[in-house]
Amino acid sequence: MTRPHVSRRGLFGAGLAAAGAGVGAVAGVAGATAATGVDPFTAAANGDESIDLSQSHPFYATAARSPQGGVRTAPQRYCVFMTFDVSSSLATDLQVLLARWSASIAQLQAGKTVGSVEPAHGDGVGADTGEALDLGPASLTVTVGLGPGIFDERFGLASRKPAHLAAIPTLPSDNLDESLTGGDLSLQACADDPQVAYHAVRDLARMARGTATVRWTVLGFGRASAGPHQSTPRNLMGFKDGTRNITTDADYDRFVWVDDAGEGAGWMTGGTYQVARKIRMNIEIWDADVVSDQQRVFGRTKIEGAPLSGGSEHTTPDFAATASDGTEKIDPRSHIALAAHEANDGVKILRRPYNYTDGLNQYGQLDAGLLFTAYMNDPEHFTRLQRKLGASDRLNEYVSHIGSAVFAVPPAPRKGSYIGEQLFR
Amino acid sequence: MTRPHVSRRGLFGAGLAAAGAGVGAVAGVAGATAATGVDPFTAAANGDESIDLSQSHPFYATAARSPQGGVRTAPQRYCVFMTFDVSSSLATDLQVLLARWSASIAQLQAGKTVGSVEPAHGDGVGADTGEALDLGPASLTVTVGLGPGIFDERFGLASRKPAHLAAIPTLPSDNLDESLTGGDLSLQACADDPQVAYHAVRDLARMARGTATVRWTVLGFGRASAGPHQSTPRNLMGFKDGTRNITTDADYDRFVWVDDAGEGAGWMTGGTYQVARKIRMNIEIWDADVVSDQQRVFGRTKIEGAPLSGGSEHTTPDFAATASDGTEKIDPRSHIALAAHEANDGVKILRRPYNYTDGLNQYGQLDAGLLFTAYMNDPEHFTRLQRKLGASDRLNEYVSHIGSAVFAVPPAPRKGSYIGEQLFR
Repeated sequence: MTRPHVSRRGLFGAGLAAAGAGVGAVAGVAGATAATGVDPFTAAANGDESIDLSQSHPFYATAARSPQGGVRTAPQRYCVFMTFDVSSSLATDLQVLLARWSASIAQLQAGKTVGSVEPAHGDGVGADTGEALDLGPASLTVTVGLGPGIFDERFGLASRKPAHLAAIPTLPSDNLDESLTGGDLSLQACADDPQVAYHAVRDLARMARGTATVRWTVLGFGRASAGPHQSTPRNLMGFKDGTRNITTDADYDRFVWVDDAGEGAGWMTGGTYQVARKIRMNIEIWDADVVSDQQRVFGRTKIEGAPLSGGSEHTTPDFAATASDGTEKIDPRSHIALAAHEANDGVKILRRPYNYTDGLNQYGQLDAGLLFTAYMNDPEHFTRLQRKLGASDRLNEYVSHIGSAVFAVPPAPRKGSYIGEQLFR
Repeated sequence: MTRPHVSRRGLFGAGLAAAGAGVGAVAGVAGATAATGVDPFTAAANGDESIDLSQSHPFYATAARSPQGGVRTAPQRYCVFMTFDVSSSLATDLQVLLARWSASIAQLQAGKTVGSVEPAHGDGVGADTGEALDLGPASLTVTVGLGPGIFDERFGLASRKPAHLAAIPTLPSDNLDESLTGGDLSLQACADDPQVAYHAVRDLARMARGTATVRWTVLGFGRASAGPHQSTPRNLMGFKDGTRNITTDADYDRFVWVDDAGEGAGWMTGGTYQVARKIRMNIEIWDADVVSDQQRVFGRTKIEGAPLSGGSEHTTPDFAATASDGTEKIDPRSHIALAAHEANDGVKILRRPYNYTDGLNQYGQLDAGLLFTAYMNDPEHFTRLQRKLGASDRLNEYVSHIGSAVFAVPPAPRKGSYIGEQLFR
């Protein structure tokens, strides 16, 4: 037998360097590493962070115009998003479903089951599937959305349609998969425990049987965009995502909450609109790109997230700043330049995205991306932004919008009522 | 316009009851609910639980015969499992990969990056993709396994093959998908933050380029089987999983850690074997089953997890106990009766499973199940158990084994060495 061997010292030094193709190359690489030194590694910063799984969010309205949870709620770590097509054409079926969902979500957000796990003597089907027993509320919120299809002729609700609710039009560089597009209803379940989020959607989907069928789903992870006291999370491209997100009451009132949804749509006052996009990232191509180019694509540095015009993460980008050669420090086709509210008549949208992975694609490459969920008081704000980004954004080389949907998100119901109840009055 | 309406009182009462098909039915259901009362709901028990993301596990051996992390480590909440085929036939490539993986895992488990995120001036490709910056170590462990293929003729290592390492044979009721089977190498990355686990596997997979290609992957969630001070987690069938798992030093020594792997395989002393199975659950069919039958399938009650012979969760099952009609209280074909060590010459295996979901299948049904990962000092122990379970287990009606692989897991390396280093001496 031939026993291959390489000196321990050589291999060991090569630990973090590029792999060589043979004994000689290995030794060479090890030497190079020893000579140049290894890059300083970054240690974890948030060492004192812990997640409290006993935390719960109220479901019912606590004041006039209370929004549903999962919009302004501090982003939880995990999300299951699912859309449904309503198969019944009876408005009462829709009413019953929204009422059952509402009562059940109130239970789930309190860390309880949606009904019996063990019916008396076990002689019945459990109303709750049981896998989240003992896990705690884990900050669960479930947000219910109503798609444009709810207001077609089926349910007699056409006159109650919010003025701004319409299917997202075809946008530049769309690459939509029909099976990941649209839906009459949406559920966004976010929690700090994935099993709690999954359990919620699973039990709510069971309740929909006979009334609605599942259309598409995405399982997201990672914190979503930052709140005022949370460090900014990173997407799977390794960049901070959400530095310039909406945080103030004034901006929520101006850009997120619906004040007047038009004639017949008073039921939406205090609500918002949800836009969901499944954005696939070509992460293996991205990973092979030099970091200077990645930074040019975003318009920010990678580790700090500072705008390329200078300063630190929260410094306002100076889109007019030029380098000594006269070119803009922040590329006009960078993601932040095109998406900035300064370049879009001051318009902002609340982004609440999660990372996702679908394992491997048919080429054996990592299949992953971003579940981009955003909230705004007019879906046209998203459409306008994405029309520009889809046409010019340098990021388009690395991403593909494969799923899309829009929903009206009614405000939270008062105790004794259910989501969307006013719609049926 | 026809405005449908149902009385608020009626709908509201129907919140958690079965959906009726029309106004009359709704009112009827609501009445029935009011009359019988709603089942008492179970409140969350572990309200004081929190997850500390600053916790880290050492990578290098801390004593003689230290095992790798991720075997006896208290199960973390999230797992990414991935297998690889080695495409190079040079033993030195394999050595370099194992050395680079080892040095990188040591960094990752300490909450650090595997190299530079921003190379000097950005003029280079980042060694680390960056998305886990600031997230903390989150109790990450990465466990490396060597498949039977490592000991074929390619690398000159045939004489070093552990005596018990061989591909899992075809077993009763196997329904294996070739693309979810086997592999020359495995990585099991477990952490309390999914982004930390995903980042680890992603960066380690990048390092393998040119040496190994990804074969299959499963993303798991939920706590794995219980340790001595941890409440028993539940699988997606809603049942506790791991009540009779291995917990004592004596059982670890007897059933998990390898003492003598045979001639030429001294490098495995203190290691273990990993068996991975991807088990799809027909959860929509399961959810429609009455709970009494579900309990018969498992041999335990659903909420408490007590054996059907009586007592509480940790009461030893009495497989001989009979009911007044003479039948066994625990069905002899139940999962716990067939898997019990009492029925298998005393053999136990360490189970460390995670739940998984792949979204929806082609029928629009929930596609989910169990990533069953188990550790033992002889893979034949698993084979023997599964031969029996695959032939007779009542659970087979609801599950399908679609993926399978086995790996030798060397002990942890000493500082200055790397996983499997002794194999190349």
